[in-house]
Amino acid sequence: MKKIYFSIVMVSCLLLSGTLIAQDVYQKQRAGWLDIAEATKPKLIETIKRPIGIVSVVKDEKAYQGWKVVPKQPMDSLYTRSMKKQSGVVLDFGEHLTGFVTFKVEDMERAADAALRLKFTFAEVPAEAALPFDPYNGQLSRAWLQDEIVTVSEVPTTITIPRRVAFRYVKIEVLGSSVYSDFKVSDISVNATTSVKEPAAPLAATTPKMIRKIDQVGLNTLKECMQTVYEDGPKRDRRLWIGDLYLESLANIYSFKNHNLTKHCLYMLAGLSYEDGVAPSNVFERPTPHPQINPLFDYALIYNVALKEYFVATGDKQTALDLWQVAKKQIEIPKKYIGADGMLDYEGADKDWWLFFDWRDGLDKQAGLQGVVIWAYKNTYELAKMLGKENEVAELPALIEKMTKAAHKNLYDAKSGLFVSGKDKQISYCSQAWMVLSGVASKAEGAKALKALSTTQNVVYPGTPYLYHYVIEAMIQVGMKKEAKDIITNYWGDMVNKGADTFWEVYDPKNDFLSPYNAFLVNSYCHAWSCTPVYFIRKYPEIFQK
Amino acid sequence: MKKIYFSIVMVSCLLLSGTLIAQDVYQKQRAGWLDIAEATKPKLIETIKRPIGIVSVVKDEKAYQGWKVVPKQPMDSLYTRSMKKQSGVVLDFGEHLTGFVTFKVEDMERAADAALRLKFTFAEVPAEAALPFDPYNGQLSRAWLQDEIVTVSEVPTTITIPRRVAFRYVKIEVLGSSVYSDFKVSDISVNATTSVKEPAAPLAATTPKMIRKIDQVGLNTLKECMQTVYEDGPKRDRRLWIGDLYLESLANIYSFKNHNLTKHCLYMLAGLSYEDGVAPSNVFERPTPHPQINPLFDYALIYNVALKEYFVATGDKQTALDLWQVAKKQIEIPKKYIGADGMLDYEGADKDWWLFFDWRDGLDKQAGLQGVVIWAYKNTYELAKMLGKENEVAELPALIEKMTKAAHKNLYDAKSGLFVSGKDKQISYCSQAWMVLSGVASKAEGAKALKALSTTQNVVYPGTPYLYHYVIEAMIQVGMKKEAKDIITNYWGDMVNKGADTFWEVYDPKNDFLSPYNAFLVNSYCHAWSCTPVYFIRKYPEIFQK
Repeated sequence: MKKIYFSIVMVSCLLLSGTLIAQDVYQKQRAGWLDIAEATKPKLIETIKRPIGIVSVVKDEKAYQGWKVVPKQPMDSLYTRSMKKQSGVVLDFGEHLTGFVTFKVEDMERAADAALRLKFTFAEVPAEAALPFDPYNGQLSRAWLQDEIVTVSEVPTTITIPRRVAFRYVKIEVLGSSVYSDFKVSDISVNATTSVKEPAAPLAATTPKMIRKIDQVGLNTLKECMQTVYEDGPKRDRRLWIGDLYLESLANIYSFKNHNLTKHCLYMLAGLSYEDGVAPSNVFERPTPHPQINPLFDYALIYNVALKEYFVATGDKQTALDLWQVAKKQIEIPKKYIGADGMLDYEGADKDWWLFFDWRDGLDKQAGLQGVVIWAYKNTYELAKMLGKENEVAELPALIEKMTKAAHKNLYDAKSGLFVSGKDKQISYCSQAWMVLSGVASKAEGAKALKALSTTQNVVYPGTPYLYHYVIEAMIQVGMKKEAKDIITNYWGDMVNKGADTFWEVYDPKNDFLSPYNAFLVNSYCHAWSCTPVYFIRKYPEIFQK
Repeated sequence: MKKIYFSIVMVSCLLLSGTLIAQDVYQKQRAGWLDIAEATKPKLIETIKRPIGIVSVVKDEKAYQGWKVVPKQPMDSLYTRSMKKQSGVVLDFGEHLTGFVTFKVEDMERAADAALRLKFTFAEVPAEAALPFDPYNGQLSRAWLQDEIVTVSEVPTTITIPRRVAFRYVKIEVLGSSVYSDFKVSDISVNATTSVKEPAAPLAATTPKMIRKIDQVGLNTLKECMQTVYEDGPKRDRRLWIGDLYLESLANIYSFKNHNLTKHCLYMLAGLSYEDGVAPSNVFERPTPHPQINPLFDYALIYNVALKEYFVATGDKQTALDLWQVAKKQIEIPKKYIGADGMLDYEGADKDWWLFFDWRDGLDKQAGLQGVVIWAYKNTYELAKMLGKENEVAELPALIEKMTKAAHKNLYDAKSGLFVSGKDKQISYCSQAWMVLSGVASKAEGAKALKALSTTQNVVYPGTPYLYHYVIEAMIQVGMKKEAKDIITNYWGDMVNKGADTFWEVYDPKNDFLSPYNAFLVNSYCHAWSCTPVYFIRKYPEIFQK
């Protein structure tokens, strides 16, 4: 998930409304939930990793973003020779890692007689190690780019750079040194962290090679994002969003099975809910857990589905019961917008709330909104039944039925077989996916609609791997197994073919330099919401066997 | 003192000769001396200091180096407002300070949603806060320039910059931040350190204002350089040189009287002596005490004089006796160069050794060398007498007499009344000063020589405050009190008039931009060897009363 925010006006309104709601609905529970979040905070698994060699980053028009990595020398050649003569050296750790980097500085012959100025540039992809970061014209903070300037005042010394970095490659430049003495840099390592304890089970021996590769890169991505919370990306923005949590926890259920992390995150979100009970779109762990003032309609509802899936996977009824009241709060959000005819007041919701669904300018979210509410209500009702709490949400079945009928009546174009959204009857992947997932579309209607997209004019395509997840899930639900597999093989497989160690936040097969932030170097190249092939390949293995 | 070094060839020769001298003459004593050095390591006095206001650094051709500081706003205006809107702000701490800087970063309204990149520039003089450091063409390490780039990954937070800095002004620039959230920087402070415990005694009430000012700036300089050793400069190079130690300890004797620091340094130098017994020209304290492989002829001899002055000031006979054997080693250095005629073989010594005396290209050091040896021998013999050890250096009186006569015979030009040096009979301040201090010149001859300098053609002037010290001392010795006072009032007073908070490493009244390193911003503006007015004003108060 990535930052976009309410306008200042909207934020002010929310702050105001927060002030007007005098009572904190979780006044009693909040501290208890945060205590449980603290108690379930994962102890990170730490592994010391070292670079495997010195590489050259070489211009190559055929390579991803125009840069490829070529092995050059063994590490010894750095560690035994003058660093002054090797400024600009690039080291390869052989895999994407997240953690704190430590290195030694030692004298050569004479005692070092001056402070040293070193620059470390950490790169997830080769271009980050090749291209200058400045001047920077991106919309996000320049500080996300991972270059750290270190002053070394004493030699010999061992220094740990005080910033956690996410990278495969590191470039070291000497920005200042004495002409009278020399030094070497040696013993570079990273204390790599993850909360993944156990490897995922191996895939069936018959699984095709490309599927294995995609699965492995997906596992790497998920592993790197699983820190003390499900992060969106370990380079950027390093924080817990409900949308990313949902996709990551699904992939985790079918791979690493570190359910404690999911529990920890669900409790943290509960403990940091807004005063009116809405689950926060995203929260920060450090220095102490705190939410962003940034409610998000669809994410709040997805909290319930993540809780249900956690309960189904673990049978942890105590947690599900404890957080059930959070789920009940989320189903209140849509109610004021549900009209007598069963249609959500899209314009009203859109005015009051941030609706996400996808990064895609111009996407009409009416159908998506109607779909996500029905889908979340259905999942919440299932959860209620498992907990014996149907009586507490007894209104849901009727609401679901009314909204489903209304959606079919108002959004389905029987002639084209497609679902439309908004005044302009926009046709999009988003709308078809959510009409399927919500059950508004029958299986046959859903298949017809999803198949029709590829031959229809002016279709709004997904802008992110996040929405692709829901599209693939919908395809599998309506039996389009081959199409689902094709998207994974083509879209994610293409990243693998271009050398991805982890899956990228943004990927357009036709444009390696696409960036929502006007600066492709600031894109995250290890991004949680791109890891879901792990979930699909492992939940539906039969689809991927040939 | 500042770094200049042997050429690589000479260093190699020294390393080789070090290898050839199989025996470490201090094998037994070394560890014991280092233990005493460790035991006498001063506990730094720590004081939290805060900025007194926000200033503008304004271009002004009449100001020192073209920049002056003008008060602008109270600190509150930084601490309560968006830092994003104040990038480039310059804070004034009101005095030169040395230590570690700490600051807070806090959210404004929304939680900070991105890493921040801040640049702190620490300035001893206004120009350092005004001018860009890059591109840098200086000969010393770029790392001595005090700009630190800090990545802030969590907010709120309190950060201590891990580099000790020396400064009065600090500029803060925002190099990276989020467009979606804002932050403030607040509570900036420095944990300022010095090993000065007690203030110096006040000067007599009748002392003229300018002399008081010079004394105060000298005290500030000395206080800032007195850390866990006598540093040459707290910005650069932050280390213990014998030459600086000597001048600082003299000033200390007459001001702060922290004799323990002198003892600590004398023991550290003893414990780090080279294997042949020569006291090291300079040593590093951290990470563990170690010397530079850089013997310096005149500094080694000055060790003895510093030891004697310490003993005279403190009566600490135990230390003097313990280190007496170090003093005895230093008097061996010149012996192999003393010819039958009593003249030192200048060319031979110059070939084997680094001879310092002053930074001044073309300075002929023959007379200085002859003088410094006689002076050191005399002081060493006085020390021996005080310790009852004359018998151990019984050769000294005869050597002193022979060398003195030889010097007078060979170096004194009776016609001009000036002492000459080298084949080209060079006339310099250095030569006259050392001929006076050594007693080669009678008082009358010395006065005549020193007075003649100002009306003689082609005189080599002092290049540093370091040599000015010896010149002034010589002048006082021959009764030229007014001239001595005039140098202090004019040279040091001129720095005061130009706004010096501490005395500068390099100062040429006609050229504010003079730098031995081709980059005036890297000059040290708080430099130990410039503090000696404190010694003169307080040792000879009668000279400065009118």
